[in-house]
Amino acid sequence: MIEKIAAYGQYDVVFSSIDDFDLDFFLQKYYSSAQKIVLVDENTYKYCLDYLITSVPSLAQAEVIVVPAGESTKTMETAIQLWSTLLEYGISRNAVCINLGGGVITDLGGFVGALYKRGIDCIHLPTTLLAMVDASIGGKTGVDFEGVKNQIGVFYFPKLVLCDTAFLATLPEEQILSGYAEALKHGLINSRELWNKITTNSPKSINKQLLKEIVKVKNEVVLQDPLEKNLRKALNLGHTIGHAIESLFLEENPIPHGFAVAWGLVYEAKIATNVGELSIEEFNEIRSHIVKHYGEPNNLENHIEDLINWMKKDKKNDGEGINFSLLAAIGDVKINQIVAEEHIIEALLSAF
Amino acid sequence: MIEKIAAYGQYDVVFSSIDDFDLDFFLQKYYSSAQKIVLVDENTYKYCLDYLITSVPSLAQAEVIVVPAGESTKTMETAIQLWSTLLEYGISRNAVCINLGGGVITDLGGFVGALYKRGIDCIHLPTTLLAMVDASIGGKTGVDFEGVKNQIGVFYFPKLVLCDTAFLATLPEEQILSGYAEALKHGLINSRELWNKITTNSPKSINKQLLKEIVKVKNEVVLQDPLEKNLRKALNLGHTIGHAIESLFLEENPIPHGFAVAWGLVYEAKIATNVGELSIEEFNEIRSHIVKHYGEPNNLENHIEDLINWMKKDKKNDGEGINFSLLAAIGDVKINQIVAEEHIIEALLSAF
Repeated sequence: MIEKIAAYGQYDVVFSSIDDFDLDFFLQKYYSSAQKIVLVDENTYKYCLDYLITSVPSLAQAEVIVVPAGESTKTMETAIQLWSTLLEYGISRNAVCINLGGGVITDLGGFVGALYKRGIDCIHLPTTLLAMVDASIGGKTGVDFEGVKNQIGVFYFPKLVLCDTAFLATLPEEQILSGYAEALKHGLINSRELWNKITTNSPKSINKQLLKEIVKVKNEVVLQDPLEKNLRKALNLGHTIGHAIESLFLEENPIPHGFAVAWGLVYEAKIATNVGELSIEEFNEIRSHIVKHYGEPNNLENHIEDLINWMKKDKKNDGEGINFSLLAAIGDVKINQIVAEEHIIEALLSAF
Repeated sequence: MIEKIAAYGQYDVVFSSIDDFDLDFFLQKYYSSAQKIVLVDENTYKYCLDYLITSVPSLAQAEVIVVPAGESTKTMETAIQLWSTLLEYGISRNAVCINLGGGVITDLGGFVGALYKRGIDCIHLPTTLLAMVDASIGGKTGVDFEGVKNQIGVFYFPKLVLCDTAFLATLPEEQILSGYAEALKHGLINSRELWNKITTNSPKSINKQLLKEIVKVKNEVVLQDPLEKNLRKALNLGHTIGHAIESLFLEENPIPHGFAVAWGLVYEAKIATNVGELSIEEFNEIRSHIVKHYGEPNNLENHIEDLINWMKKDKKNDGEGINFSLLAAIGDVKINQIVAEEHIIEALLSAF
C-alpha cells in the first residue's frame, strides 16, 4: 500500500503513456503481492485492454471484470453484483482495483473499491477526454439512484490517476465533445486567458500541454476543498441545469453528459446575465461558442416543470432554494447563489 | 456544519446525560436550519425516543425512521430502503442524522449517512453498553453482505458521540454482557491494570468513570490510525474467531456479538499460548473469567471446517493466510500474526 501519498485527498495525476510512466514497475514496487482487478466496460475491453496488458506484464494474471457500457450501468445493482464477484474471487483488502474506462468506470470502480471491505486501493486509467479532465480527478465516486445522478457515493481518492492520451485517438467525435464541455467549464471558472486558449482550439486539437493546464484547474480546487464545503462548488458551474437535462432523458433517450453540461453552461450564463452578474456580451460569446460545437437543445421548453423538479433534487441544495454557481465574468465564478424559480424559467425559455 | 471538528477522524466523544450536555443547544447552534432525521429500531423507538424528544425540543419536527431490531437489519437492502425514504422526504445534503440505538443502528445509520449525497452529518447516541464502548467509536460503518459481517462499508466519522448512561438502566442482562466482552478486550490490549479493574467489576457495576477509561483505549488507537493500517488492528483481538462464530450462526440461531467475541478472546488466547506467546497461567485467567460470565460455547467442534472458511473471508487477511492479533501477555498485543490452520484447529478443539 502506498503510504507516501496516503494523506487524505493527496494523490498523483500523471499525463504519460503507460510505458513511459512504467506502470508495470509501479505495480511491482507497491503491489507486488496484491491481487489485481481490472474493471472495464465492453468498449474498453475491446479497444483498450490489450494495450494495457501488453504494456504491463504484471497484469497478465489480473481478474478482468467486464460491465456493460453506458451510464445505465452506474447503479447500485451493478455495484452489488461487483461486490459479489469480488467476494467470489476471494479478493482481500490488500487488493488493487484498476479502473480502465470513461467516467462511468472510474465513478463506479472507485465506488465499489471504496466500500469493499471498507476500501481497497484504486488506480484510475481514464480512457476518454471527459474522464481525464473531470470524472477521474477529485475523488468523487458514486452511482445513480432511482434515476437521480450520483445520489449515493463517497469521496474516495485513488492512489494514482494515469492519463495516457493514446486512448483518445480512437474516440468517436461525440465522446471528444463530451470532454470538451468540461474543459470549457474549467476555462470559464479559471481565467479569460485559459478560456481563450481552449476556445481557439477545436475539440480535437487540444494537446497534452493544454490538457495538463485544464486538469490543473480542477486538481488545485479539489486539493484546497476536497469535501466540497465551499470553493469546490465552483466546479458545479453548468451542472445544476446540466444534470437536470441529463436526468430528465436518462431512461428514454440519454443525452451525453458533455452536451447536457454545455447547454447547462449556456442556461446558467443566461441566469447570471438576468440577475445582473454577467455581461450580455460575455453571455453571447459563451453561447455562440457552445452552439457552434453542440448545436441547440431540442424542445426543452416543453419540460420546464420537470427540469425544475430535477434541480430541486440536486445535492447542492440546502432545502430552501435552488443553489447555483454563477459567473460574474468569464474567469470569475460565485458559489452559493440561490436563484428564484422565475429566473430559472426565464433562462430556460430564452437562452437559445 | 461543524467546521471545528471537521478534520479527518476528529470528533467528540462525550459521556454525559443529554440534558447536562444540552444537546438541544448544540443542535440549535450547529444545525438550526438543517433537516433532522432520527434513526431508531423498534426497541429504541419504544424505550428511548420519548426520553430524547422530551429533552431536545429541536427534535420535535424531526423525521423519525424506524427499522426492525437486530443484526439481520444491517443489510444493503435496508440501506437502499433508507436512501429511498430520505429522497422521498426531500432530505438535503445539509441534513443531520441522529442515530439512536445499539451497534446495528450506529453502524447502519453511519453508513447510510456517509453515502447519501456523498455524506450528511451524523450524531451517534449509543443506547447499549456495546455501542458505547465499541460500535459507535471509531468511524467504522457498514452492512453485512451475503451473510458476511461488515463486508461493505466505509470509514466515516460522526460529528459527535454522546453517551448517556441513563439508557443502560433498562438493558437486559444479555445486552450488558455483550458490551462487557468488548470492555474486557480493551483491558486485554491495554494494560494489566485496566484488565484487573474491569474484571474486579461485574458487568453491571461498571460505572461512568471506568467506562470513560475503557472508551479512551479505543479512541486513542483510532485517532492514531483511523484507517486501520497498523495499530488499530489490535482492536480486532478476539474478533477473527468471534466474527466467524457470529457469521456461522447468523441466519439460523444468532449468537449475541458479545458472546461470540468473549469466546473468540478465549480461542485466540489459546492460539497465542500454543504458538508460545502467552503464558498458560494468563490463558487460564482469561478463560476462567470469561466462562464465569459467558459459559462455554456449545458444540463448536462440529463446525471446525465452516469456522475456518468464515475466517478466510475476514477483512484482515491479505490472501495468504489467516491474520490474527494475538496476546503476548495481558496488556500486550501483537498485530499481523499469520497463524497456520493446524494451530487454529487445535485451539478450537482444546480451548474449553
